[in-house]
Amino acid sequence: MLVAILLYPGLTALDAIGPHEVLNTAGGFDIRFVWKRPGPVLTDHGGLTLGATHALADAARPDVLIVPGSSANTGHAMRDAAILAYVREAHAHTRFTTSVCSGALVLAAAGLLRDHPATTHWAVMSALARHGALPRPDERVVRSGKILTAAGVSAGIDMALDLLAALRGEEAARIAQLGIEYDPRPPFDAGHLSRASAATHAASLAMLRQRGAVPVAWE
Amino acid sequence: MLVAILLYPGLTALDAIGPHEVLNTAGGFDIRFVWKRPGPVLTDHGGLTLGATHALADAARPDVLIVPGSSANTGHAMRDAAILAYVREAHAHTRFTTSVCSGALVLAAAGLLRDHPATTHWAVMSALARHGALPRPDERVVRSGKILTAAGVSAGIDMALDLLAALRGEEAARIAQLGIEYDPRPPFDAGHLSRASAATHAASLAMLRQRGAVPVAWE
Repeated sequence: MLVAILLYPGLTALDAIGPHEVLNTAGGFDIRFVWKRPGPVLTDHGGLTLGATHALADAARPDVLIVPGSSANTGHAMRDAAILAYVREAHAHTRFTTSVCSGALVLAAAGLLRDHPATTHWAVMSALARHGALPRPDERVVRSGKILTAAGVSAGIDMALDLLAALRGEEAARIAQLGIEYDPRPPFDAGHLSRASAATHAASLAMLRQRGAVPVAWE
Repeated sequence: MLVAILLYPGLTALDAIGPHEVLNTAGGFDIRFVWKRPGPVLTDHGGLTLGATHALADAARPDVLIVPGSSANTGHAMRDAAILAYVREAHAHTRFTTSVCSGALVLAAAGLLRDHPATTHWAVMSALARHGALPRPDERVVRSGKILTAAGVSAGIDMALDLLAALRGEEAARIAQLGIEYDPRPPFDAGHLSRASAATHAASLAMLRQRGAVPVAWE
């Protein structure tokens, strides 16, 4: 089973690596990291690269497509004709088309989310509706037909467990969950807008704005 | 503040990327991915590379050291003289020395964990004691002085939030937590040995053994 994880300049590394680790631990997937050409792709760290293993054309019909988000460059990806063409072509053949964080906006820009309930990072949630999607800000993972969208960054791990369960059954997902010891115990409870204080919300939004994650046009 | 994340052939990508994403989101850290030379380092995916941004010598005295684990190659890292020398030298100067997953065994092999409570991936927990550490299998993150060890793979995210709180205060950690929307909701509850069924445990261990994560000598 072929899994294509789309890379593009400025992506957020954990958006791609979280789901990857769940599927890689489960084993038996041909996981390809794809970009216009094989080789290093710069993440939003500014120095860290992830290596694309294949060109887009070498994973044109994946069984699973995973589109990560970016804290700085989502808007560019949404206007990249090669990305949009790849996403549309892949989606026509996938068993599951998925996104993490602002990757949902790339799916939306490709026209895949019209009339679909979907989620994304809280800071760009309002942009979903502008592309005809139905925002679900209180859900961490939203499934609509064969489309799975995940909330911000770390939510890709939860999404991938749902995906694995859908592909291979719940026990396969439990085995992988134990394999990556995914028994989360965050020391604080500020990971969702509904439980973060107003001050934490304002500071986090300011931080994301400073990095270019939230274009003024999306607010 | 200089953060060195050690890369080495066969590392588990999420072990490195989880903590990275917390600190990168917080901002203000000079995060360097270090290996013997800059350039691509193969992960345990077998095809995916992470790019080392700096040589070991270019981050010899980091404020924070993060050592990831590997599902296939921890034993080799534990015998690599250059890795052990780097870890010892770095530790002499750090504010915090940390590990994720079987990265704790690299710290142990360097002699850093003698008489320290520590944790690691459940499948290699017994190897900790052989290096004089005091295993804490029920704790997700263990702090002992300036050493922070995390349980398997995904636990690096929780560890990094503790680390960030120790360095900059709890509010900084909450802001970063909201930034990566770390509000985990795993669809199953099999992430810790104490709650996984015997069958899930056996299957997960078999899967890890097949990949070489658990040398017979460690069981």
